[in-house]
Amino acid sequence: MFKVKTLKTTLQNGILTITLARPQQLNAFNGEMLSEFIEVLDNADTDDAVKVVVVTGEGKAFCAGADLEKGGATFNYDENPEEFRDEGGLLTLRLYEMKKPVIAAINGPAVGVGITMTLPMDIRIASSRAKMGFVFTRRGIVPESCSSWFLPKIVGISKASYWVLTGNIFKAEEAVEAGLVSELVPPEQLLDRAYEIASEIVENTSAISVTLSKQLLWRMSQTEHPIDAHLLESKLIQWTGSRADAKEGVTSFLEKRKAKFTMKVSKDMPDFYPWWEKS
Amino acid sequence: MFKVKTLKTTLQNGILTITLARPQQLNAFNGEMLSEFIEVLDNADTDDAVKVVVVTGEGKAFCAGADLEKGGATFNYDENPEEFRDEGGLLTLRLYEMKKPVIAAINGPAVGVGITMTLPMDIRIASSRAKMGFVFTRRGIVPESCSSWFLPKIVGISKASYWVLTGNIFKAEEAVEAGLVSELVPPEQLLDRAYEIASEIVENTSAISVTLSKQLLWRMSQTEHPIDAHLLESKLIQWTGSRADAKEGVTSFLEKRKAKFTMKVSKDMPDFYPWWEKS
Amino acid sequence: MFKVKTLKTTLQNGILTITLARPQQLNAFNGEMLSEFIEVLDNADTDDAVKVVVVTGEGKAFCAGADLEKGGATFNYDENPEEFRDEGGLLTLRLYEMKKPVIAAINGPAVGVGITMTLPMDIRIASSRAKMGFVFTRRGIVPESCSSWFLPKIVGISKASYWVLTGNIFKAEEAVEAGLVSELVPPEQLLDRAYEIASEIVENTSAISVTLSKQLLWRMSQTEHPIDAHLLESKLIQWTGSRADAKEGVTSFLEKRKAKFTMKVSKDMPDFYPWWEKS
Repeated sequence: MFKVKTLKTTLQNGILTITLARPQQLNAFNGEMLSEFIEVLDNADTDDAVKVVVVTGEGKAFCAGADLEKGGATFNYDENPEEFRDEGGLLTLRLYEMKKPVIAAINGPAVGVGITMTLPMDIRIASSRAKMGFVFTRRGIVPESCSSWFLPKIVGISKASYWVLTGNIFKAEEAVEAGLVSELVPPEQLLDRAYEIASEIVENTSAISVTLSKQLLWRMSQTEHPIDAHLLESKLIQWTGSRADAKEGVTSFLEKRKAKFTMKVSKDMPDFYPWWEKS
Repeated sequence: MFKVKTLKTTLQNGILTITLARPQQLNAFNGEMLSEFIEVLDNADTDDAVKVVVVTGEGKAFCAGADLEKGGATFNYDENPEEFRDEGGLLTLRLYEMKKPVIAAINGPAVGVGITMTLPMDIRIASSRAKMGFVFTRRGIVPESCSSWFLPKIVGISKASYWVLTGNIFKAEEAVEAGLVSELVPPEQLLDRAYEIASEIVENTSAISVTLSKQLLWRMSQTEHPIDAHLLESKLIQWTGSRADAKEGVTSFLEKRKAKFTMKVSKDMPDFYPWWEKS
Repeated sequence: MFKVKTLKTTLQNGILTITLARPQQLNAFNGEMLSEFIEVLDNADTDDAVKVVVVTGEGKAFCAGADLEKGGATFNYDENPEEFRDEGGLLTLRLYEMKKPVIAAINGPAVGVGITMTLPMDIRIASSRAKMGFVFTRRGIVPESCSSWFLPKIVGISKASYWVLTGNIFKAEEAVEAGLVSELVPPEQLLDRAYEIASEIVENTSAISVTLSKQLLWRMSQTEHPIDAHLLESKLIQWTGSRADAKEGVTSFLEKRKAKFTMKVSKDMPDFYPWWEKS
């Protein structure tokens, strides 16, 4: 187990678990957690042993939001307004570039940046005891972590507006109905269920296919016409289709056995990846 | 109570109620209602006493659609084709610019422009007795009020296609399942429930935060990459975070008391608002 | 009944049924099916006798995906990488241009291209016995048929990511919950229900309105600001509103009788249609 100051990480069976680990502060988010989180994600993306990332919280909360230790001055940044960058956004932009799929296992309250940080994660499941809230209008600020971009894509503009404008705290049941989380799990089974989903990916899929597909979905769904998706998909089908994982994928299927994919994200990605310019 | 010809308005507890008031015509929409509606909205946006707007209908219907008093010639406009502008669209474009949140309390049938006018409103609730229909293909015309833009963002492209292509009338239950309305309410409790939601906003949130957040969600969810949201959110977090409402928002939260926000939409908005060019 | 090699077609009551007809191969998709499918769609679009298209599969399956008869070399295309075009995408791009509404009646397993080919169809219903799977990551390839563009618009980015990253096979119940199909039907009633929906369109709507509305929804929902929708809707309302179908649509409604629309897609479309450049 690797322990930096604000996070704990463990790697087992291809699954890297990142645990927000400031339980005394209900895992409140701060600049140190941001730096450490990004470092851990950078490592996960270059390490072929990491196939899937699971993010959860230590103790009762997932993440209670921004650290409020500065009280009323919490959001009063001294920095040059022109240069100020929202820290939650720096995290979600990094998550948006991830090669490895990320699963959020929301074990308890996830409020403010505590819930918005999960929006670029690919899959979210929650403890039946979890609560969420996009509470920004109640604190006199606005949604952050690029949530104004992510949230409507996940739950639609009307549900996003409802939650953001009222700023209310809502139960996990409402989150699952709206599609913010894909399923509710009894608290004591949450991590096991997250690992079960992660294992489904680790054991059955080509890591190369997963990385390419993840980014294909996010990027192409933003374009204006399906022709853009068609041209890129054609390029990727032609590229992946002529390589070892596709041969193994089809052969194993026809032989009714589990596939053994051998290509590695660290060295076997197409030379045109990423096909976008990083922000 | 303020009464123009086609609408009634009342203001109480920070909530402006706009009642479509042509009950003999099932509140059918016409050019006069458009002009009066826009005037009332303009006033609401400049009046700090108005924190939230609720729109409902007088009598049995919410709005039966376009006024058909010209019969078969209803949609046969004499105007220059190049200059003709859909009246429903002029209303929804104005609603899209609103600073104040708008809640639709759909008390009965909402058909044609009667339902499409509600799409840019932030929250929609409906009487369990309400019915809706995007009936344009049954009248030989096409969807209007920018509904081709709004509806798929609210219910997804497939449900939108289903309703628009069949042109059928559907029950409130189907609307809530699809996310077109967020909840069903017994008819006699509809307005009270609308006021309850409105009050949740009035009593707990910063009016400045609400206005900025509302527009942030609508505008940023349309951009291609989250970096645009990040840059604008950063600017707004820096701006709001250093002002009185943020200080009060965090302080009151830490002191476990209700916040008393003092900033006003009429004079305390950032000088870079609006950050878009009006259409 | 018209029979080409891989499809069967029948035309009755304004409804063209296209049946994928390689039942021994579970209706697996190949180049021949693509050519024939496009030819049938081209004919449907020019034939005024065709008001609605229904697509279903012969036998137990809807479509098991790409034909795998080449085994491990299935996706290893010899063609020039620069020129290679995904065949599923050529089909969905053609479907995206359709003038006539298309209803998928998913009678059994729909896997890979078997489900992605249905995404640009306007309405999808499924047998309660159907199963679906976006299995690409399990075959070592990536999503195709422009599904990276279509799927998130139908079920949201999170559900799309879940299905694509795990590559798992899921039941029809999950598809209906997510909005991938609009309803489940007992197997023996599936086609009848598809015809019932199709007839609702055939019997009650203006064919001109349906074609214009279908494309209006798809195209305008992709633009950044509702003003684009407003300008085009204004043009189309002005155009349709002054023609025979609008007169009949309103008159028949006021007379409480069924409308008899007379305008034809083959010759009565506005001269500015299509308003986009074809890809």
